[in-house]
Amino acid sequence: MSAPHRVTVIGSGLIGASAALALRREGVEVRLTDRDPARLAEAVERGAGIRLAPLLPPADVVLLAVPPAVVAPALADAQRRGLGHVYSDVAGVKTEIIAEADGLGCDLSAFVPGHPFGGGETSGPARARADLFENRIWALCPSAGTRPEAVGAVRRTAELTGAIPYVLGAEAHDRAAALVSHVPHLVSSALAALLTEADPVALRLAGRGLRDVTRIAAGDPDLWAQIVVRNARPTADLLDDLAAEFRRTADDLRGGRSATNITALLARGRQGTARLSDV
Amino acid sequence: MSAPHRVTVIGSGLIGASAALALRREGVEVRLTDRDPARLAEAVERGAGIRLAPLLPPADVVLLAVPPAVVAPALADAQRRGLGHVYSDVAGVKTEIIAEADGLGCDLSAFVPGHPFGGGETSGPARARADLFENRIWALCPSAGTRPEAVGAVRRTAELTGAIPYVLGAEAHDRAAALVSHVPHLVSSALAALLTEADPVALRLAGRGLRDVTRIAAGDPDLWAQIVVRNARPTADLLDDLAAEFRRTADDLRGGRSATNITALLARGRQGTARLSDV
Repeated sequence: MSAPHRVTVIGSGLIGASAALALRREGVEVRLTDRDPARLAEAVERGAGIRLAPLLPPADVVLLAVPPAVVAPALADAQRRGLGHVYSDVAGVKTEIIAEADGLGCDLSAFVPGHPFGGGETSGPARARADLFENRIWALCPSAGTRPEAVGAVRRTAELTGAIPYVLGAEAHDRAAALVSHVPHLVSSALAALLTEADPVALRLAGRGLRDVTRIAAGDPDLWAQIVVRNARPTADLLDDLAAEFRRTADDLRGGRSATNITALLARGRQGTARLSDV
Repeated sequence: MSAPHRVTVIGSGLIGASAALALRREGVEVRLTDRDPARLAEAVERGAGIRLAPLLPPADVVLLAVPPAVVAPALADAQRRGLGHVYSDVAGVKTEIIAEADGLGCDLSAFVPGHPFGGGETSGPARARADLFENRIWALCPSAGTRPEAVGAVRRTAELTGAIPYVLGAEAHDRAAALVSHVPHLVSSALAALLTEADPVALRLAGRGLRDVTRIAAGDPDLWAQIVVRNARPTADLLDDLAAEFRRTADDLRGGRSATNITALLARGRQGTARLSDV
């Protein structure tokens, strides 16, 4: 599969502008657009590409770097306008977005749902970096009907950003994302939310550990809400598991001194982090 | 209050050996001991002090850098042997340990319960560093009967390590520690524990965010169990709050698309992290 020559990036936020910068670095012709003219101007100013103009030939790949809630309508619109041969997106959840796109009559044979991992708590084109995806996994979740050439084109596009493409089913992606991303985000947020009413004395005692655990809670609430409501079942199931674990632990603590269950939980936690560092 | 000239450190693990190294750097005469001869030898080898020998004059301050479960018995033993004029410890929980010491007939007028924040997930004298406490809070929780000169001596000892002494009541300490340390640790562990049975595919998708949230779960399970069972009520109450929050969120997710509550939780989380970075 030959590398894409022309890529159109719809949405010039952190992810879109970073992908655009990375592709420009590799000599790809990049056209940009954004519903916010100031954000588009900033991305163009930063050298991420030129403005998308009417009557240009279709791009090899159109990357929809827009919030999860608008991926499906943006795809429908872009396909209606014939903006490209192949389409992909960057949303953190896949199954539901594919269903939404299908519901809007999109051509799924040319749509390769994608999700570059990484990005962190920041947003906006000002924070964009050509190396944002360097050595990060970029998940690709083609449906049964997606054309293989379309998958190949998006795979090459991801590779050009320095990312490692990883093809898996949309449902497997969403279950995994609930575990490694969506639930950790909600957990971090719930813990950080306790701090809103904390005594200033307590905050003085906070160390690096608490800062680590709550760092990702700084992410955009609207964006994350859009993601988790689209991955409701896997996320809810894991939250229930954690709620049950917390309630058991609270009961054990109140019940007296036997630390057996608590030590076992902490030991399983240590095993889990060890697995993570083995990857 | 003049600075302590002689300090005896009981327990030559990460915290004890780091405090010893910091005090040696300031010219304090440090004697060390440990129930594990190999650990003691390593701490001595690293220059953290000389071995505690019989028939030496009492130290100005005896620092009990032993696990929470053995602080009270170690204090009773040290006081019976007349090892020092003033005693302190480094355990992450205070009220219960004071009660245990009282129950063993310790002289609480010479005991200044302490807790240096910091240390992280590592342990052992090999990781000890003279700057471990640099600019970290070192909480001191004297009881009503603690002699002011004893508090002064321990305060100066903490200052000599580069830490910032911070005097507060034991109950206030424990409530704060549940919020900023014990519950975050359990939450991190519970999340990391989910990874023990995770599909390898999911682990491949794990990024920096999950690593941040689960980092502290690498801590010593026995040590942390000793801490949290001694701070049962404040820890259990917060775990219940979180369990209720998770259950509400899971119900909202299953109930359909209204993201209002979830967005509100995420927004409160962002406020909480902002408070933390303002400290």
